[in-house]
Amino acid sequence: MMMSVISMGLTTITWLVFGFTWSFDEWGAGKGFTYVGFRNLDTVWPGTTMPGLTFAIFQMTFAIIAAAIISGAVVERIRFSAYAIFIVAWVLAVYVPLCHWIWGGGWIAEMGAKDFAGGTVVHISSGTSAFALASLLGERRHKDESFPSNLPFVILGGGILWLGWTGFNGGSAFAANADCGLAIATTYIAAAAAMVMWITVERILDGAPTSVGAMSGAVAGLVNITPCAGFVEPLGALAVGAMGALCCISAARGLKRLSLVDDSLDCFSLHGVGGFAGAILGGFFDTGDGLIYGSDGMLLVKNLAGAAFGVFYSAAATAVIFFLLRLVMRMRVREEQEREGVDLHCHSETAYGKSEHSGKPGTPAAAAEEPRVLLTSSAAQLKITVQKPTGV
Amino acid sequence: MMMSVISMGLTTITWLVFGFTWSFDEWGAGKGFTYVGFRNLDTVWPGTTMPGLTFAIFQMTFAIIAAAIISGAVVERIRFSAYAIFIVAWVLAVYVPLCHWIWGGGWIAEMGAKDFAGGTVVHISSGTSAFALASLLGERRHKDESFPSNLPFVILGGGILWLGWTGFNGGSAFAANADCGLAIATTYIAAAAAMVMWITVERILDGAPTSVGAMSGAVAGLVNITPCAGFVEPLGALAVGAMGALCCISAARGLKRLSLVDDSLDCFSLHGVGGFAGAILGGFFDTGDGLIYGSDGMLLVKNLAGAAFGVFYSAAATAVIFFLLRLVMRMRVREEQEREGVDLHCHSETAYGKSEHSGKPGTPAAAAEEPRVLLTSSAAQLKITVQKPTGV
Amino acid sequence: MMMSVISMGLTTITWLVFGFTWSFDEWGAGKGFTYVGFRNLDTVWPGTTMPGLTFAIFQMTFAIIAAAIISGAVVERIRFSAYAIFIVAWVLAVYVPLCHWIWGGGWIAEMGAKDFAGGTVVHISSGTSAFALASLLGERRHKDESFPSNLPFVILGGGILWLGWTGFNGGSAFAANADCGLAIATTYIAAAAAMVMWITVERILDGAPTSVGAMSGAVAGLVNITPCAGFVEPLGALAVGAMGALCCISAARGLKRLSLVDDSLDCFSLHGVGGFAGAILGGFFDTGDGLIYGSDGMLLVKNLAGAAFGVFYSAAATAVIFFLLRLVMRMRVREEQEREGVDLHCHSETAYGKSEHSGKPGTPAAAAEEPRVLLTSSAAQLKITVQKPTGV
Repeated sequence: MMMSVISMGLTTITWLVFGFTWSFDEWGAGKGFTYVGFRNLDTVWPGTTMPGLTFAIFQMTFAIIAAAIISGAVVERIRFSAYAIFIVAWVLAVYVPLCHWIWGGGWIAEMGAKDFAGGTVVHISSGTSAFALASLLGERRHKDESFPSNLPFVILGGGILWLGWTGFNGGSAFAANADCGLAIATTYIAAAAAMVMWITVERILDGAPTSVGAMSGAVAGLVNITPCAGFVEPLGALAVGAMGALCCISAARGLKRLSLVDDSLDCFSLHGVGGFAGAILGGFFDTGDGLIYGSDGMLLVKNLAGAAFGVFYSAAATAVIFFLLRLVMRMRVREEQEREGVDLHCHSETAYGKSEHSGKPGTPAAAAEEPRVLLTSSAAQLKITVQKPTGV
Repeated sequence: MMMSVISMGLTTITWLVFGFTWSFDEWGAGKGFTYVGFRNLDTVWPGTTMPGLTFAIFQMTFAIIAAAIISGAVVERIRFSAYAIFIVAWVLAVYVPLCHWIWGGGWIAEMGAKDFAGGTVVHISSGTSAFALASLLGERRHKDESFPSNLPFVILGGGILWLGWTGFNGGSAFAANADCGLAIATTYIAAAAAMVMWITVERILDGAPTSVGAMSGAVAGLVNITPCAGFVEPLGALAVGAMGALCCISAARGLKRLSLVDDSLDCFSLHGVGGFAGAILGGFFDTGDGLIYGSDGMLLVKNLAGAAFGVFYSAAATAVIFFLLRLVMRMRVREEQEREGVDLHCHSETAYGKSEHSGKPGTPAAAAEEPRVLLTSSAAQLKITVQKPTGV
Repeated sequence: MMMSVISMGLTTITWLVFGFTWSFDEWGAGKGFTYVGFRNLDTVWPGTTMPGLTFAIFQMTFAIIAAAIISGAVVERIRFSAYAIFIVAWVLAVYVPLCHWIWGGGWIAEMGAKDFAGGTVVHISSGTSAFALASLLGERRHKDESFPSNLPFVILGGGILWLGWTGFNGGSAFAANADCGLAIATTYIAAAAAMVMWITVERILDGAPTSVGAMSGAVAGLVNITPCAGFVEPLGALAVGAMGALCCISAARGLKRLSLVDDSLDCFSLHGVGGFAGAILGGFFDTGDGLIYGSDGMLLVKNLAGAAFGVFYSAAATAVIFFLLRLVMRMRVREEQEREGVDLHCHSETAYGKSEHSGKPGTPAAAAEEPRVLLTSSAAQLKITVQKPTGV
């Protein structure tokens, strides 16, 4: 919980000082410092109708979301101070380069891959990095506790997310015009299609749809449409959402069966796989260059190349940061702390009220009261930890 | 809970495919399909400053809200699959025709009744249909459990609703101009007036105001002002809110005493009666044609006719859909499922954490843990199920 | 909980009738009634790009927030009816005059003090009045119960607050232009800087950062930047947030150690001290007239004078209202009511579910279930009461 809150603060400051200028200024000897501290942003940003400073803040929110997604995968395991340093390094060494290459005029942009609102920049980068970091940290020791335990919050959170995403995708048209309206429409439609697809699959495979499935489906659809929200038709968005959701639910169930990595919140299945699927589906359904509209398929190839590079770069750079950090500090919380819940030990507080059980760690009652995070994808302010009500 | 979430997905897809085009295209042989799949919406929608696609999405949110209101009245009783089919049929056979007749240039519009932001289209239609569906389904078997059990959520939900409604009523001016400002002002004022009126009545009748009453009052005021938000003065809005709240609280208390229908959440008293009262009050306080400004009262007659037809049509069409559906499927959940809570059986999950009591249905502990919905009016994402904490 | 909800209703009506016109019309014999009932607001408000009615509603939200802040300091002690009368009197006798003097062309504005979005009008006025009212009411009898007991709500509430504040500060530029973009940027940056500063101090002094600290820091930063959000550079905002947070955390800890006043929610430390610090810091970092940009320091002196007068006037006027009210009515709840929780007695309801313990007041179980408010600063809709889960 603390982790995604502090992500917000640290990412804001990192972005203010070096993040924005390194992402959107030219690279080269002596270059890249034009916008340090958000200076020199008084005029309208080229290619948009926004003042430069507004553009910098809008871009900042993407970086904050990306950092918050990562926190979801490693809760209950990583040390707070290690996480704080990791996230600053990650923004500068993973997010900023990818953002520059794709949105700042770098080589992926020049190649011709399209990423409307952050399929690769935000979702592939954070989903893959979350997966890599979770692998390197190892499993939680008490996995069975992470079953989503507070459905009303999931629903409420999902609803706010849905609305917020409209802002991200709509805002990525950089003007309140018809493009913005198209992006909002495709975003809604893809989320709805993916939600219906996800619970249909649950109904077929498990016999019963679930609320968590409905929300996972909606998030999958939102991620799927992100790279192509401004480039597809409404009916194309329906297809992108439905087909993307199939990819995500397959990935989530496949990974769970393989038990390779303990990704607390399906960050990789929803954000990593979802962003990848969206890039590929954009190659088919893009109204300008998509395969189904009779193009030569070069957009599909370019999107695929961009997304694949995003996966590779994010995983590799995350691993490098992790091993460098581990040289100088312990990364995981200590075993006994993990058993009693990270919040209690590191932050001197439990989620609900004063703790009455702190004197008897390891008893069943104590274990039952461990706080756990249940909704962390995107939107840092929605990170919610809940605690099972103490039953009789 | 699931029901209003899935409403969102299904209504979105229904609206995309046929709902919008049948509402806003001309009717007639071979007509009505211009906007299927949101096609042909590239230009500004006539009479607004919005691109056609934005208009279609804005209208979609009204349909989603209407569908979500219905779910509030029938929770814990209706089968999930029956609800899913019902809601698609309802959007196409109840919402779409009323929307066409009132906002799409149909006969109610030509007659001259005024419905600014959905008093009849959204609130009378959904409130009446909810009432009809609840009557036809019959009572819940365990009514005493539905006492609102989580006040913080009610307050939080009510606050978000209040803000969201500003968007609906403000947006219905279809442009960011003075009309929009007027609609926002009247919306706030009516909600405040109705809230103060409701808790004053509670104070007089019961001796103590309640938070639930304050929120019910605010919702009543929001519904009351909906049909006339852009047509009344600020002081007129004060009167509309206060007088409409009196109608709604009378209806809520009268219906509770009569015990005719088990409407879990006062959907009919707030939305049905509130929308009706708003239409009539608009006939008095409309600055152009209202009785108190010296008009001939024709607006009052027309509004009354439109609202009364809305009540009749919604109830009749809902009954027809219900009986047709019941020919081919069971509508209610089975008795033993209802006793243990619908969420547990149909969706394989309980609201908070894993269930430990599933092996002993019917025990007092199990009964005490049944999840129940407490805030469902409008805003699908605010549908919240809570569970009484298991006490000692 | 009820108190901040009802604040919303009462403040809206007060503002509609006399509040706005007395704040923004000229003062003098026979003057001040031009805008009673929001009349005569059809044209664009001078100096803005908003219609007059939109301006009146925007200003109303500031008054509502100010009233809601006060409720946070006196929960569990003040009588509901006394609070209702107090808040109407406070809006008319404290808020309206300060608003007129600072934003309505009065003497503080003419003197040259700058208050961008309500540092003195909203935060010093409400924070100081809350402090004065809490002193005059005396301590709660059961203070130890007020430990924040529901962290997820604190985080969620803080996040929504953060977003909402962007609207207040951004909207105070009165147009969607570059000034608005600057205000949004500085608001985000100050909140982030203050959050990081606050948890750094906690880390140093207590050994562990807390979520409550992170949120307190963010609120402190938001208050600090309020008076100067449109007047400082992004790097200036970083300094304002960090230095202002130091003032607030010092005040919070100093007051707690002195135990002079039982301010349930640090209203004074965050809003009163934070607003004061922001006014002073604005004198240093204002890009036009700030000391560090080489000005003569007159802005610092004027801001200091305006803020100091705000403190004095708010405290004095609050005391006068309090003593006048006490002449005619009892202000505090009765002792036995307080012991069992105000919500139960005055509002016939508990926060979660039906009360099973009402028959045995004063037992430990009853005491443990007293609802308590935990997040009340600003944003009336976020007032949340929680209850400790009943443990084994």
